[in-house]
Amino acid sequence: MIPTYRGYCMITQLSRRLVIMSKLANFHVKEQICAPFTPMKDDGEINHSFVKTYADYLVQTHFTGVFINGSMAEGSSLTLDERKRMAETWIESSDGRLEVIVHVGTNCIKDSQELAKHAEKIGATAIAAFSPSYYKPENEVNTRKFCELAMKKIPSFRGLKHSKREMPSLHDCSMVENLQVLVGTDFQYLSSLVLGVKGIVTASYLGNITYDMRTAFEAGDIEKTRDIQKISHRINNIRFKYGGSARTCKAMFNILSGMDVGPVRLPLRKLTTEEFENMKKDFTDAGLAGIAKLK
Amino acid sequence: MIPTYRGYCMITQLSRRLVIMSKLANFHVKEQICAPFTPMKDDGEINHSFVKTYADYLVQTHFTGVFINGSMAEGSSLTLDERKRMAETWIESSDGRLEVIVHVGTNCIKDSQELAKHAEKIGATAIAAFSPSYYKPENEVNTRKFCELAMKKIPSFRGLKHSKREMPSLHDCSMVENLQVLVGTDFQYLSSLVLGVKGIVTASYLGNITYDMRTAFEAGDIEKTRDIQKISHRINNIRFKYGGSARTCKAMFNILSGMDVGPVRLPLRKLTTEEFENMKKDFTDAGLAGIAKLK
Amino acid sequence: MIPTYRGYCMITQLSRRLVIMSKLANFHVKEQICAPFTPMKDDGEINHSFVKTYADYLVQTHFTGVFINGSMAEGSSLTLDERKRMAETWIESSDGRLEVIVHVGTNCIKDSQELAKHAEKIGATAIAAFSPSYYKPENEVNTRKFCELAMKKIPSFRGLKHSKREMPSLHDCSMVENLQVLVGTDFQYLSSLVLGVKGIVTASYLGNITYDMRTAFEAGDIEKTRDIQKISHRINNIRFKYGGSARTCKAMFNILSGMDVGPVRLPLRKLTTEEFENMKKDFTDAGLAGIAKLK
Amino acid sequence: MIPTYRGYCMITQLSRRLVIMSKLANFHVKEQICAPFTPMKDDGEINHSFVKTYADYLVQTHFTGVFINGSMAEGSSLTLDERKRMAETWIESSDGRLEVIVHVGTNCIKDSQELAKHAEKIGATAIAAFSPSYYKPENEVNTRKFCELAMKKIPSFRGLKHSKREMPSLHDCSMVENLQVLVGTDFQYLSSLVLGVKGIVTASYLGNITYDMRTAFEAGDIEKTRDIQKISHRINNIRFKYGGSARTCKAMFNILSGMDVGPVRLPLRKLTTEEFENMKKDFTDAGLAGIAKLK
Repeated sequence: MIPTYRGYCMITQLSRRLVIMSKLANFHVKEQICAPFTPMKDDGEINHSFVKTYADYLVQTHFTGVFINGSMAEGSSLTLDERKRMAETWIESSDGRLEVIVHVGTNCIKDSQELAKHAEKIGATAIAAFSPSYYKPENEVNTRKFCELAMKKIPSFRGLKHSKREMPSLHDCSMVENLQVLVGTDFQYLSSLVLGVKGIVTASYLGNITYDMRTAFEAGDIEKTRDIQKISHRINNIRFKYGGSARTCKAMFNILSGMDVGPVRLPLRKLTTEEFENMKKDFTDAGLAGIAKLK
Repeated sequence: MIPTYRGYCMITQLSRRLVIMSKLANFHVKEQICAPFTPMKDDGEINHSFVKTYADYLVQTHFTGVFINGSMAEGSSLTLDERKRMAETWIESSDGRLEVIVHVGTNCIKDSQELAKHAEKIGATAIAAFSPSYYKPENEVNTRKFCELAMKKIPSFRGLKHSKREMPSLHDCSMVENLQVLVGTDFQYLSSLVLGVKGIVTASYLGNITYDMRTAFEAGDIEKTRDIQKISHRINNIRFKYGGSARTCKAMFNILSGMDVGPVRLPLRKLTTEEFENMKKDFTDAGLAGIAKLK
Repeated sequence: MIPTYRGYCMITQLSRRLVIMSKLANFHVKEQICAPFTPMKDDGEINHSFVKTYADYLVQTHFTGVFINGSMAEGSSLTLDERKRMAETWIESSDGRLEVIVHVGTNCIKDSQELAKHAEKIGATAIAAFSPSYYKPENEVNTRKFCELAMKKIPSFRGLKHSKREMPSLHDCSMVENLQVLVGTDFQYLSSLVLGVKGIVTASYLGNITYDMRTAFEAGDIEKTRDIQKISHRINNIRFKYGGSARTCKAMFNILSGMDVGPVRLPLRKLTTEEFENMKKDFTDAGLAGIAKLK
Repeated sequence: MIPTYRGYCMITQLSRRLVIMSKLANFHVKEQICAPFTPMKDDGEINHSFVKTYADYLVQTHFTGVFINGSMAEGSSLTLDERKRMAETWIESSDGRLEVIVHVGTNCIKDSQELAKHAEKIGATAIAAFSPSYYKPENEVNTRKFCELAMKKIPSFRGLKHSKREMPSLHDCSMVENLQVLVGTDFQYLSSLVLGVKGIVTASYLGNITYDMRTAFEAGDIEKTRDIQKISHRINNIRFKYGGSARTCKAMFNILSGMDVGPVRLPLRKLTTEEFENMKKDFTDAGLAGIAKLK
């Protein structure tokens, strides 16, 4: 089920899980990772020149790494060549300041192998892979069991981005030895911290909030952590009112951080002007517009 | 959508929510509530004489109330007369030591009204109602919004047992003023405590564990709370391996607490001897058998 | 799984199936059955005096039987006493002109046994039972297999109302020997007829259309049958635009047949005046209003 | 929502629909189309040399066209170059005897555009596209409405392969003028024929059966058509017992037709020897093994 191919591996037939792989045996990513958007120009082509500014912003808001070409980056809407070039641009623009995890999941194992080899060649920190989206598994084991099985078969299997909202499943996975679990659901980061799970993959505009929440929690100040979680909660309540996918979040990055990463590519559609203005008003009314801007 | 009928009310068209109602304006239940099983004899008839022993056990394991005739009690499998008599027996056997919340939800509004009137007459602490299970709502508002709407229309609406696993939804509801939110998912109690939600409706065998968890948390000892949550987590992992409904939990009560509440009634089926022995072995191997026995 | 109790039987743990039972070994219902609404007065009480007129209408539109106290009759919203009295009223009003099948499904096996005994006592043609709606089965066998198992265990098991839209499943069941399969999905009656399944349980306003469709089909006139199926299809397209449950269909009966069976009971809600007028306009625009009126 | 790009078009945000496009205004495909498998060697590479034999077989079993690189062909598991080369091989091997419809759906609009241009260049009869599988639509219109909207926006939109089991939806679509509807669910072909829908996309081993069914139906012999449908029904009952996807059907092609198209590619897995032998035994016991062999 989980074959290794010439040193690379490919996760098959399991949905809604994202595994992280590295050749280093004791590999752990640093704890605050951004899932950046792919900056685009109005004609839908990729805006590579924006990535340097983007990386600077992320470093300044406490991010320690980027998880590129995933869902928020519309990775599945990019060609193989575009994905490779994005990986190169991020490594170049990070210039050692951010760990770069390259998502190589596709529907086609040969394509994923090609992306994995490329990531290794250009010096990515790690690769990650979602399972194929077209063919669904006929049976599905639970996430903890999946990880335990995978770790036996795949020498480079190192971690998991847990994106289901299920706390018991997150808790379960966090008990697997030598497995790094990253939270993929920032709206319940506090509920994860209390279970001992600190690593997180979150949105571009949540760097400072996430950092402050973790810092307060580690200082033992539950009340303060709770207050910060409420801010994140309010942000996400507005987010999900407008759908919640990359099309929404790209617009949110603009409203909350002042960063313009452009439109999305089909099959996603850019927010209409009306949707954008309504959302902006919601954030403004909640006192949240501009909250993630650099001072 | 949420009509009040001659002083009683009935929640309509909303699934997986359980609301709590009382005539007292500032009503709050005490924080540790048990959802007891209905003790049955081998012939499937109700074993009323066991309830006194049961109530004693619950009091001794820190429970402050019982939530009767709900899912764990197979309330929907009992006749109206049986439900009324159970309510009477619990109030009698509790003898003031436990708050008694009577679940009056049915598929038929006239039946629920009858149960509600009876609960009031016999002095129940509060009533609660699940929405009808046969006709499903055509649209569903989110839980927080539902509560806000309901509180305006139903003067006696006081609280909510939140049984979805969704932390953001629980968090959302906990922000509604004058609404008491009770956690219905004990396997994530720690993740709820950290959000400020303490009240819980839990299984008969989890009294001491729940109490110890809350006590450690309130003393600021996160590590200890986390360790206790792990015990609850391990108990529930075995539970869900065997299905998780009343048929499983009645057997668990026997294995963990030494209390025999008998079989279940159709459409549920008692565990087979083999299932029971396998589950018992799982608990024994995990060092958990007898963990909830009185010392 | 499917116990018999003192001569009666109860189907457990299986959803979306409705089985038909009779004590006669070679029992078959006649082929055109109506699932009538429960006539109600504006105060939500049952309007028994309308049933005679209703039965007359059904007989005149080629119905051979009624399937009472089911979904369209809001059976789950009626008390046990109301259900019993409805059964009596239908048998009385039918006066031998219609076979009367009494739905006895509830969430509580004792209640279903009581309804079954009553149905037998008053001379119902057969009983039928949906599975409980509150506790869902943990595993589900496929429908054909279910019937084969049930027929071995339940001597009085005679037939099935197949309400899923799955043609292969209907086809499958139709191959079980000595099992009468009734179509519950009138919008695909032609697709069922061609597979050899003639018996149908349908809405009050579709008597003549169903009869004409079957008659044309049996005369070998596929073109004509197809034309009539299109009328039924257009009626159902408007129906589902407005939800499709008893609340919609009661209003449709008024618009299509001129018969006023009153409002629905909570948790269903009567169509608003605006919804009613919109639906009426849709039927009028489609040339369908009044199509089921007696000439 | 449905943009045209430089003469090509791409269907966005709609799942489980497959649309067929051609530059010819009055385009209709002939009525019996095969969805062939991609022949593979034991090392997982494509076996191009088998396609000529395959095409001969299809022509001899009454197929008039092939629908290539779709689900049964594991199109999503092939690289762009492999998909292009398969299209070339099929056009070459068909040598005018079969219409060749090339599936160009991917998750990436640029990739689909590239495949569409290539298909046109090499003289494919038409192209077809599934919607992206990774990003799901936030809202979904019904299939008939989708087609009506698409036909207005996409000049080359010609038809639909209807793969849902919903007869009312198929019926609905069949009423759209100038839209060719093809049945994608062979286990209910008779139920579609009776509604006037003749065109079908079916499995490699069902050519003669499908042809015989349609011929009998057109001759007005319902009994005979029903008997042939039963054979198809029995074949599919065994198919779905073993999952039903390309991994099952490739093995079935071997058992039923004697044609060996080799293994599947990851993420699908070849049947184990035990699964294969069990399935073969099931077909042999049912008298169906070899039923699709050329005489």
